[in-house]
Amino acid sequence: MTGGNDDTLLVLAPDAAGLAAHLEGRLHDGLEVIACRDSNEARDRGTGATLALANPDLLAGVLDDLPRLRWAQSTWAGVRPLVDHPRRDYTLTGVRGIFGQAMSEWLLGWLLAIERGILRRGRATRWDATRDGTVAGKRLGILGTGAIGQAVARASAALGIEARGLNRSGHPSEGFRETFPLDAAQHFAASCDYLLALLPDTPASSRLVNGKLLAALPRGAIFLNGGRGSTVDTDAVVAALGTGQLRAAVLDVFPEEPLADDDPLWAVDNLYITSHTAAPTDPGAIVELFLANLARYRAGEPLADVVDFSRGY
Amino acid sequence: MTGGNDDTLLVLAPDAAGLAAHLEGRLHDGLEVIACRDSNEARDRGTGATLALANPDLLAGVLDDLPRLRWAQSTWAGVRPLVDHPRRDYTLTGVRGIFGQAMSEWLLGWLLAIERGILRRGRATRWDATRDGTVAGKRLGILGTGAIGQAVARASAALGIEARGLNRSGHPSEGFRETFPLDAAQHFAASCDYLLALLPDTPASSRLVNGKLLAALPRGAIFLNGGRGSTVDTDAVVAALGTGQLRAAVLDVFPEEPLADDDPLWAVDNLYITSHTAAPTDPGAIVELFLANLARYRAGEPLADVVDFSRGY
Repeated sequence: MTGGNDDTLLVLAPDAAGLAAHLEGRLHDGLEVIACRDSNEARDRGTGATLALANPDLLAGVLDDLPRLRWAQSTWAGVRPLVDHPRRDYTLTGVRGIFGQAMSEWLLGWLLAIERGILRRGRATRWDATRDGTVAGKRLGILGTGAIGQAVARASAALGIEARGLNRSGHPSEGFRETFPLDAAQHFAASCDYLLALLPDTPASSRLVNGKLLAALPRGAIFLNGGRGSTVDTDAVVAALGTGQLRAAVLDVFPEEPLADDDPLWAVDNLYITSHTAAPTDPGAIVELFLANLARYRAGEPLADVVDFSRGY
Repeated sequence: MTGGNDDTLLVLAPDAAGLAAHLEGRLHDGLEVIACRDSNEARDRGTGATLALANPDLLAGVLDDLPRLRWAQSTWAGVRPLVDHPRRDYTLTGVRGIFGQAMSEWLLGWLLAIERGILRRGRATRWDATRDGTVAGKRLGILGTGAIGQAVARASAALGIEARGLNRSGHPSEGFRETFPLDAAQHFAASCDYLLALLPDTPASSRLVNGKLLAALPRGAIFLNGGRGSTVDTDAVVAALGTGQLRAAVLDVFPEEPLADDDPLWAVDNLYITSHTAAPTDPGAIVELFLANLARYRAGEPLADVVDFSRGY
């Protein structure tokens, strides 16, 4: 794939204006930019686009109306809506390497808050010399050993947390002292004081975290989902919190978002809900990543982070 | 100093029984152990001691009644009560290298709780997609660049926090990209998004964190005291929280502990009090450190972490 001189870039995202502002003055002459906030607007104005910098949900809604599209850069880690779409005659690139920091902060922030009694101490009104727990020496199991999981494993090691990973085949991954294949998930879970799900939304990950897997954890484990809502059987998490099999759970993502105000999950003890804020998209960082890929596109070089439609990520 | 065969060990601490349990079966034959929970008990039963594994406060109260004392291993980092005592004809060893992990957890736990909205999200009852802050790229200034500060600097670096240090002369210290001398404290403060006090209780550190130093911080900084209460002018901290000069403060230690239930500090907004739990003594770790020094004592080798009475640490 080599860039033509007649390219048109569709910027399609709720924050299209913010992304366009970051692009200002950074693009080569002759590249027309059309910024749209939703699929309808893109259908009206953007059908001539050859390139897209787009939210996967919104782009999927207009994909059939972009006959000239050659390359789309996703603004999100979750590209499922595009992978599920039958069209595959364009190159889709994903987002890697920019969520690791935010996810590490989210994970360590919550583990430390729970172990060190920070939620309780944050509203203390009298001296409380209770001895807190520690994360030191604890075993963190990460479902998913890609770029985000590797970054989390590295950051966790600095606090004495030992990371082990689970992936499809059990192949080794940087930063993990041990990795397990999908079919050893129970065995893997048995060695995890903390379990973090970071899986993409694929058939293999659907409801992988169910009652059986939670029962395999050591009693009193902590479960966190920073990946996709479809990975988790939420009822099973609630049940495990009820029996004390789980000491706490932190859920960032859900099959349907936002959760309704009257959803019973808000009232479950020791269940913390972080409203899909674990690893937010940073428009500036996304734009840098897009520009680096755009330079490769124009030079006829292979793009970075190309999504494999058959794997789904 | 060489160990004799007629040594008697006084274990003097509120948790003397716990320490003695960790020592069980680990001492050489002929070493008598006397475990006492307070100074009065030690005065009754422990006056023959040649060695002590002791809480500095309690040992200071009985120091004049231990004529044969040759070596005392402190169970706490804060040895001020013994340094202030006129008696100096024995060797005092301090505690190093075992508080770094706990202090790192305390610091990072609170910084992440504040930046990532964990205190608020921990009691959320509806979807809240507010974008959180980050610790990435923030500048952490540490007052005190000893073993604990170095450990904290290392752990912070893994989350993208840049540590700089302040010590007496501004000498370099491992893990700090920059260090400042005491007389450049204002200049130092001006470059700190977060300020952490880890200073021992010495005349030079007394009220070093006062209104002038707090005013030199960038507006909206976070202050944390994990060292000694005497370092901080608490009224100045409260005032800086009131004007927004400080966004938040976390105080673990106070000139008098415990704080009374009716202390007005409990009600100050954005002030968090952690009741001297930041870096608790771990009896098992203290005993390992004592046993390593005991082996040196018996072999006539120099002891580790000897306190310099003139410096005060």
